[in-house]
Amino acid sequence: MALPETVVADLKRLLGPENVLTAKEDLIPYSFDGTAALSQMPGAVVLPRNTEQVAAVLRIANAARVPVVTRGSGTGLSGGSLPVADGLVLCLVHLNRVLELDRANLTLRCEAGTLTQTIAEAAVQAGLFYPPDPGSMKISTIGGNVAENSGGLRGLKYGVTRNYVMGLEVVLPDGEVLWTGNQCVKDVAGYSLRDLFIGSEGTLGVITKVLLRLIPKPAAKRTLLATFARMDQAAQTVSDIIAAQIIPCTLEFLDRTTIACVDDYAQIGLPRDCEALLLMETDGHPAVVEEEAARMVELARRNGCPEVRVAQTEEEAVKLASARRTAFSALARVAPTTILEDITVPRSELARMVRFVEAVAAKYRLRVGTFGHMGDGNLHPTFLTDERNAEEMHRVEEAFKELFAEAIRLGGTITGEHGVGVAKKAFLPAFAGEASMRVMRELRRVLDPNGILNPGKMF
Amino acid sequence: MALPETVVADLKRLLGPENVLTAKEDLIPYSFDGTAALSQMPGAVVLPRNTEQVAAVLRIANAARVPVVTRGSGTGLSGGSLPVADGLVLCLVHLNRVLELDRANLTLRCEAGTLTQTIAEAAVQAGLFYPPDPGSMKISTIGGNVAENSGGLRGLKYGVTRNYVMGLEVVLPDGEVLWTGNQCVKDVAGYSLRDLFIGSEGTLGVITKVLLRLIPKPAAKRTLLATFARMDQAAQTVSDIIAAQIIPCTLEFLDRTTIACVDDYAQIGLPRDCEALLLMETDGHPAVVEEEAARMVELARRNGCPEVRVAQTEEEAVKLASARRTAFSALARVAPTTILEDITVPRSELARMVRFVEAVAAKYRLRVGTFGHMGDGNLHPTFLTDERNAEEMHRVEEAFKELFAEAIRLGGTITGEHGVGVAKKAFLPAFAGEASMRVMRELRRVLDPNGILNPGKMF
Repeated sequence: MALPETVVADLKRLLGPENVLTAKEDLIPYSFDGTAALSQMPGAVVLPRNTEQVAAVLRIANAARVPVVTRGSGTGLSGGSLPVADGLVLCLVHLNRVLELDRANLTLRCEAGTLTQTIAEAAVQAGLFYPPDPGSMKISTIGGNVAENSGGLRGLKYGVTRNYVMGLEVVLPDGEVLWTGNQCVKDVAGYSLRDLFIGSEGTLGVITKVLLRLIPKPAAKRTLLATFARMDQAAQTVSDIIAAQIIPCTLEFLDRTTIACVDDYAQIGLPRDCEALLLMETDGHPAVVEEEAARMVELARRNGCPEVRVAQTEEEAVKLASARRTAFSALARVAPTTILEDITVPRSELARMVRFVEAVAAKYRLRVGTFGHMGDGNLHPTFLTDERNAEEMHRVEEAFKELFAEAIRLGGTITGEHGVGVAKKAFLPAFAGEASMRVMRELRRVLDPNGILNPGKMF
Repeated sequence: MALPETVVADLKRLLGPENVLTAKEDLIPYSFDGTAALSQMPGAVVLPRNTEQVAAVLRIANAARVPVVTRGSGTGLSGGSLPVADGLVLCLVHLNRVLELDRANLTLRCEAGTLTQTIAEAAVQAGLFYPPDPGSMKISTIGGNVAENSGGLRGLKYGVTRNYVMGLEVVLPDGEVLWTGNQCVKDVAGYSLRDLFIGSEGTLGVITKVLLRLIPKPAAKRTLLATFARMDQAAQTVSDIIAAQIIPCTLEFLDRTTIACVDDYAQIGLPRDCEALLLMETDGHPAVVEEEAARMVELARRNGCPEVRVAQTEEEAVKLASARRTAFSALARVAPTTILEDITVPRSELARMVRFVEAVAAKYRLRVGTFGHMGDGNLHPTFLTDERNAEEMHRVEEAFKELFAEAIRLGGTITGEHGVGVAKKAFLPAFAGEASMRVMRELRRVLDPNGILNPGKMF
């Protein structure tokens, strides 16, 4: 159904014509997000400036039963901000002000379109720390991070976005505005609507403001890089680190294919004859960091790492960390289409899952590079393919089905940090089970009775 | 409405007659919880042994539209497990097995009726740590902790129960069983039903199993006790500690009345001429603990504390901590009825709130002792009264109204860790606002369409 002319006219009156895009060339940049091989043309893109305008847009859309897809920078990796054909895209990038940094209560309040990086920098300037660091943080918005409950490289020690959200302003589909949460460290008055909206992928309401918790900045950090001839040695090192009561802030993994691509790309001087690379970081008090780093070196060596590289300067630390930070870009360079997966298993099952990924890739004659958050059990098997090759794309899909089934069988999940969106929608019922699916469907109907928010996404 | 005879007969057939209590003398112990001045006789108490029996009980109750109030040990402080007249009490104390402690994944899985203390001890035996420590932890059950999202003395540094729940098994009112969550550190597949059930006070489903996250045990701990002539000096000390980037694991406060009652009771040798006592604990790596303890001593002295007592032995630490741990018991000794409140404000507003409590107590001619979690802004003003004195009880109620209104005005909440239950029900709408109330009512109707779970509680 084409977007009704009257709706467009109402939106232009509300926001000014310059904030309502309808020309095809203006819509194209909003027709996709960070997810490979997906695009869809919306009917219009609206760019409100404040909560009141968001509420008014939703009232118009709700009355006309027009689908609304909310987005920030569009860095999502599960198609969560893919437009609905001829629907509205509600783009919040102009709601980008940091409203308050409260040093006494260690909180930061901002609008939903604020860049994650801006928040991280504001925290640092106040001598504080905002830990969640999704890979896209330089351009992603906090509203998107909250809607997707984004992770990052520090999940094991510091948790994910959910763990730092204290409050939200949310506009419901009928235009009603609610606040949930506050600056209190403890609050048990009523259901945690905040936690229901976190990770709901734009299907229950539109997040317009966020109240975040900050923490003291760790005084020191140490970065280590270890390589292993065999994957099992890396997995055992991770197990031994945890058994030694060390919770590193970063515990990342690259496989052989990823190591080669990264080194071609970033010229770090990585060995090519190893099955696994671990990037390990410990942060906190200098004495703790020293001890933990020494212990991690010892454990890596005991498990067969010939030499652990320990960064001696901040510059060297950044260089070592770039082995992991550039992994996706490095893989993306070597194939026309890279499809990044996000399966997660209990940490103890990780080595088994990596081997399974390799076996499935071989079975379906696919190239795969796997990297990820080893401490979290969160793997990113990345298939190197070409979306123009329909036959190969079919094999990729078949491979994914096996990976998701195995992740579920091992007690894992189909998505650790990228969301369900369009990409994992078909797999959610097998993961969640019938009872949870029924409850989720009914909750969604309560919050969005006309089904205008991100229809066709998640389930 | 009396409990139908057929329902009792069905329950006895299901559970065996010894697990269905109906004699008045058997029901009396279940007619109240930890909340002062509230009691109600149920129609029957049922004691199931496993999830299947819980599901079967709910199917019977749901078909007959019989109200069900779930409870564990009944230590709640907001009347959340107060029976409904002639309804069923579903008591889960026999679901008390620790099912698995997984050292590789740092998780513990147990049944809902497991004592919090049992979990804490199981963690310690594995060299690990379960931080939430509600005051009643020796006898409270984990199911109750999750249903109330219980806090404790370590909230500022370690968070509350919600932060340690990775998964839940929940029985819905129609007897359907669902699992939400798993052993993965990251999981964003679908809405977080887990977080919706946490803190829902038995109104959305019956929690039967819990999967908990454990963390490494801190290697060292230091306990300090400081007294201050004026409340403002204590508040400034807390602010200075946070500004110094220290997040103590305990930062507790007693006022003058509480100090006197505690010292009469526990004979710790506390000074009587001070307005505030701070109990401070830092834990973690020995070097960090040393530094932080020294810095806290310095900050307390700079703010006018004549002498900070630093525990030199574990025994002495326990003795100092008992000043706080015994606060409620000590106050409860000196009056026939003690009504414990639970208002919470942003940390920066805490000194103001303590003064307001004193002013309100004076206005209504009431005796009050205030203690609480200073680092969390979570205060427990405790009114020393006599429930047989209707006129004084009325003044207590009037005082509470003023306290809640002021907490909300300061950006705080009506309950930090005790829940809404019956006690705060009247105040929830003013706190949550109309939009949130509407959403909460509709969510509840979705999960419990016949309204059998804890009717009349929360809202």
